[in-house]
Amino acid sequence: MKIGILGGGQLGRMLIQEGLKYDDEWFTLDPAADAPCSSISHFTQGRFDEYETVFNFGKGKDVVSIEIEHVDVDALFELKASGIRVCPSPEIIQVIQQKILQKKFYKKHGIPSPQFQIIQNKSEADFPLPFVQKMNTGGYDGKGVQVIRTEGDLTKLWNVSSVLESLVDIEKELSIIVAIGEDGETKTFPVTEMVADPKLNLLDFNICPAHISEEVEKQIADITAQFTKAACSAGLFAIELFLDKEGKVWVNETAPRLHNSGHQTQEGNANSQFEQLCRILKNVPLADTDAMGYSGMLNLVGDENHSGKVMYEGLEEVMKLPKTYVHLYGKTNTKPGRKMGHINVLAASREELMEKLIRIKSMVKVTSV
Amino acid sequence: MKIGILGGGQLGRMLIQEGLKYDDEWFTLDPAADAPCSSISHFTQGRFDEYETVFNFGKGKDVVSIEIEHVDVDALFELKASGIRVCPSPEIIQVIQQKILQKKFYKKHGIPSPQFQIIQNKSEADFPLPFVQKMNTGGYDGKGVQVIRTEGDLTKLWNVSSVLESLVDIEKELSIIVAIGEDGETKTFPVTEMVADPKLNLLDFNICPAHISEEVEKQIADITAQFTKAACSAGLFAIELFLDKEGKVWVNETAPRLHNSGHQTQEGNANSQFEQLCRILKNVPLADTDAMGYSGMLNLVGDENHSGKVMYEGLEEVMKLPKTYVHLYGKTNTKPGRKMGHINVLAASREELMEKLIRIKSMVKVTSV
Repeated sequence: MKIGILGGGQLGRMLIQEGLKYDDEWFTLDPAADAPCSSISHFTQGRFDEYETVFNFGKGKDVVSIEIEHVDVDALFELKASGIRVCPSPEIIQVIQQKILQKKFYKKHGIPSPQFQIIQNKSEADFPLPFVQKMNTGGYDGKGVQVIRTEGDLTKLWNVSSVLESLVDIEKELSIIVAIGEDGETKTFPVTEMVADPKLNLLDFNICPAHISEEVEKQIADITAQFTKAACSAGLFAIELFLDKEGKVWVNETAPRLHNSGHQTQEGNANSQFEQLCRILKNVPLADTDAMGYSGMLNLVGDENHSGKVMYEGLEEVMKLPKTYVHLYGKTNTKPGRKMGHINVLAASREELMEKLIRIKSMVKVTSV
Repeated sequence: MKIGILGGGQLGRMLIQEGLKYDDEWFTLDPAADAPCSSISHFTQGRFDEYETVFNFGKGKDVVSIEIEHVDVDALFELKASGIRVCPSPEIIQVIQQKILQKKFYKKHGIPSPQFQIIQNKSEADFPLPFVQKMNTGGYDGKGVQVIRTEGDLTKLWNVSSVLESLVDIEKELSIIVAIGEDGETKTFPVTEMVADPKLNLLDFNICPAHISEEVEKQIADITAQFTKAACSAGLFAIELFLDKEGKVWVNETAPRLHNSGHQTQEGNANSQFEQLCRILKNVPLADTDAMGYSGMLNLVGDENHSGKVMYEGLEEVMKLPKTYVHLYGKTNTKPGRKMGHINVLAASREELMEKLIRIKSMVKVTSV
C-alpha cells in the first residue's frame, strides 16, 4: 500500500517505525530537508500548507494522512473528490484546524467545552475576566494561546480572529486517544494525565492510567462517544480535557492525529497509538490497547540556554534503569524548548512511576556540543 | 554514530527499526537491490563476501557488524587493524563461519558438543552411524546439513570438507541468546524452545520460556558462561542447543548475530534482541530482558506451491486476536520456504500460548497473487 503522510516530524517517524513491520510504502512531505522522516521514507521536500504541493504529493497514493493539522485542506478535499482515501476526513481536519469552527462544533454536538466569545479583532472583546485567547489558526505546542487575567492584560490582546474562552479552574489536565476505523469500530487508550511545564507550556510528563474517579471516567467516556459520533470520520484523535475543581470535565481541544499524550503507549500498552493509526490507514481490524501496568513519559526538550548540535547529558545512566525506554527523534540540532525525544517508563505502581519520572528528569539535560 | 551492517535482510531491517529510536546513521551492504534494509538505510548494493567491497563499505564507519555470518573476514580483520570497531570480532566470526573451526573451538574450551570427525573428502569418512554431515562452509537455514542413517545413505555423502557429527537423540531443541558488551557485561534472554518443521528444516515455532528442569537450566547457564568466556568478543550470540533424552545438553551450533529463535523478544521481553544489539553497537549499558509472560513465535514461510508476488491469506483475521503481532519483512516476492515474516504471540500460560500458535498456524498461508 502507498501511504502518504503530510508532515515529516517525529510523529510521522514513530508511525513509520512501527509500520515497518508491514509491507507498505511510506511517503512523507515536509519543508525541512532533514526532517525526522526524510531518511526512512520516500521523501518530498515541500510545504504541506500549499495547495499544489499537497495535491501533487497525494496523487497516486492509496491513502493520505497527516501528522500535523496545519495542512492545506482544499487540496485534501480535491484528493478525496478524485477518489483518494483521506484519513482523517478533510471535513474534520478543517474543523479542528480553526479554533472558531472547533468551538462551534463542540457547541453544536453538545460536547462540554468552556464558554466562549468569537472575535474578529480585539475591539470586539467583551468577555468576563480571566479568560484565554486562542488564535483561530496557527496555534501549536502552546503558541497562539495566552491568558488574559486582568484589565491591564487587555492591552496584550492579539488583534486577530480568535476565541476568548473561560479560564477553567484546573484540577488536572487529561487526555484520551480514540481510534476510529473505516467501519466505525472504535478503541480507546486509557485516560492519561498530562503534567505541564509552566515555563515552556510544552507537555512534560504523562502518567497513565490517570488517577480519577469512576464518575470522571464516565464523563470522559460520554465525551468520547459524543466526539466519535460527531467527527464522522475514521482516524486517530486525541481529546485534551480539563478536569475542574468541581469534578466536571471540559474539552480543551482535539487533535486529529497522533499525540504527545500517547507516547507512553509504545511500551505501556499491548499496542501503541502508532500501531493503531497504521491499522486505520491500512483499513485492517483495530488492535487491543490493554495497559501493561503503569506507564509514563517524560519529554526531552531542548534546554533554554542551548542552541546548535545536540548533546544528551545523562542518557547512558538512564539507559541502565529497568523498563526505561529512550526515544530520540533524529534531530541534529537543539534549540530552547524544541522537542528532541522522550523517555517512556513502566512501573508496578503510580508511586514507583512518579519516583522514576522525577529521578530521570533530574538525570538528563538536552544541551549542545 | 555511523553503524555499518553486512547484510540487508530481515534481521538487519528489524535491528534498524528498533534503532530508529536513537540518532544513529545506519548503513547496509547487500547484493539484492530490493533487500529489506534498502529503503530504510544508506544502502550499498554489493557482495558482503568480497574483500574489496566489504573493506570499502566499512571504511569511515564507527562500528561494523553483521546480520549474516557468511562475510569476508579478511576485510574485517583489515578494518579492525585500521582502527575501526568490528563487532563481533573477526576472530569469532571466522571460527563460527567454518563448522570445522567451530567444533574445534567447542572441544578446546570444554563446551559440550556432539562427538565428531573432520573430513576433507568423503573417502575419509569413518564414523559410527547414524550421523550428521555438516559442510564446513556455506550452510544456512538447514542447507549444507544432511543426516546419514544407514550404510546405503553413505553414497549420498557430499565430497567436501565437512564435519561428521553424532546424531543426538533429541528431546528438545533449545536456544539461548547472550549479549556481551564491550566492557564484558553480559545479559541473557530466557531459554527458548524451537519446534522445527521437519519438511522445510526451517525454524517454525518458538516457545518461551522453555519447559525445562532446573538442572537443565544449570547446564545451559554453564555452557553460556563457558561460551562467553571463550568467545572473548562483544556481540549478540545465539547458542543453539540439543537436550537429549538422557537430560544432557549439547551445543549444536552458535550464530554470532541476531537469531530467529529470539524474534518473540520484540514483544515478549522488556527489551528485544534487536534493542540489545543496538546497545552493544552503540557501546551503552545493556538492557533488561525480563519476560512479560509467555511468548511465542511462528514463522511465515512461503508455501511450497507458490512463487511470485506475495499474498498473505488470513492475516486480517489474525490481526483481530489480542496480543498478537504480525511482522513482515518487506519482501515483494515469495518462493517455497522463504522466510517472509513472523507472528509473535503473548499469553498468560504455556497452554494458551500453544493453542494460539497452533490456531494461528492454521489461519495463515503465504501464497502468491
